[in-house]
Amino acid sequence: MKYCYEYPRPALTVDCVVFGLDEEDLKVLLIQRNLPPFEGKWALPGGFVRLDETLEEAARRELQEETGIENVFQEQLYTVGELGRDPRERVVTVAYLSLVKLSDHQVTAATDARNAAWFAIDDVPPLAFDHAKILRLAHERLQGKVRYQPIGFELLPAKFTLRQLQHLYEVILDRPLDKRNFRKKILSMEILVELDEVETDVAHRAAQLYKFDRKKYDRLTKRGFNFEI
Amino acid sequence: MKYCYEYPRPALTVDCVVFGLDEEDLKVLLIQRNLPPFEGKWALPGGFVRLDETLEEAARRELQEETGIENVFQEQLYTVGELGRDPRERVVTVAYLSLVKLSDHQVTAATDARNAAWFAIDDVPPLAFDHAKILRLAHERLQGKVRYQPIGFELLPAKFTLRQLQHLYEVILDRPLDKRNFRKKILSMEILVELDEVETDVAHRAAQLYKFDRKKYDRLTKRGFNFEI
Repeated sequence: MKYCYEYPRPALTVDCVVFGLDEEDLKVLLIQRNLPPFEGKWALPGGFVRLDETLEEAARRELQEETGIENVFQEQLYTVGELGRDPRERVVTVAYLSLVKLSDHQVTAATDARNAAWFAIDDVPPLAFDHAKILRLAHERLQGKVRYQPIGFELLPAKFTLRQLQHLYEVILDRPLDKRNFRKKILSMEILVELDEVETDVAHRAAQLYKFDRKKYDRLTKRGFNFEI
Repeated sequence: MKYCYEYPRPALTVDCVVFGLDEEDLKVLLIQRNLPPFEGKWALPGGFVRLDETLEEAARRELQEETGIENVFQEQLYTVGELGRDPRERVVTVAYLSLVKLSDHQVTAATDARNAAWFAIDDVPPLAFDHAKILRLAHERLQGKVRYQPIGFELLPAKFTLRQLQHLYEVILDRPLDKRNFRKKILSMEILVELDEVETDVAHRAAQLYKFDRKKYDRLTKRGFNFEI
């Protein structure tokens, strides 16, 4: 016990909510804890903040160490400091939110994680600490974001179909959307560029491929809009 | 130095950005520090988080202790943890944002504040620490909020004129708005109730008074909308 202070201090951690999308589901990245408390339980990747790193650096480091995932954009979600949220002592955690393309990120458990894996958002095992609450906050933030920001750039492949984009909105919002309405609205946002290509290797009729107009996408992300669907 | 830990820990503080409105300006509540570092400098009210209180409780307590202000709604703004932001040691701070009616809150300096006062947002003195940056974050959040949430309930008197409401938007957005456009848009939101009353004690022609339809206001606050002005 080498580090002593005049007043007691809470421990400070970061936790990472990483959402990814595949053909089926919105998924979240979890690790299986290798140490007590909650040994063997699934949890969000995360850990203690070091004195010589910023909060963002700590979040990036912990994510890399525990899951092998690197180079993702992390946005601060919320800081949670309820009493008793950790059985050991007072711990305050700064939670971060990321969106990634599932296909780009092979996960590999490391350091104090026994295992790391993607779970469908509606099939998440019981989580350690108050991580279920943090995950719910993150999901709500994501659902809120799609109302006033374009979304998909971080989650979809570079070229995608309108069906894939609609699927993304459906899994985030957790409800089916009307196809005609969705297409009309998304095209009226003018963030999509129609490509001279169609899908390949599909059993059904090959659909038109699109990409995002990055400039317009970024402008709307900054400026905000209202996407009532 | 009675509190010892195996690993070094950052200190954890809260800081409070409290915005208020008067006839002229958007104002922010500041305290003058009575202790080093930055003794004599103006700063956001705030202080260290105790082990037995939540972050929200700490923010409420510090605001009350340093400025006398109580019973305000505080929303978490952002957690700032850059290295070197405090000359003493590593300090991570959770910033909170409040909107209050200036007339309801008489400020009184107390504890480690030499002085507490309201400053017009565009006439703020040089601030201690990175508080100018936190204030800018808070102002940007407020400017972002008015784009997709109704605003004014916490800042205006119960009965107000459209001129007062427009003034509020103008000081938050820091630009003049077209009167006809503003009125058309704000009325189309259907969050205002026209009262059977006009202003009293005014030199100019007495204007119609309005109040917020709390139910619709709350619904829009939750649900979001797009208020392009």
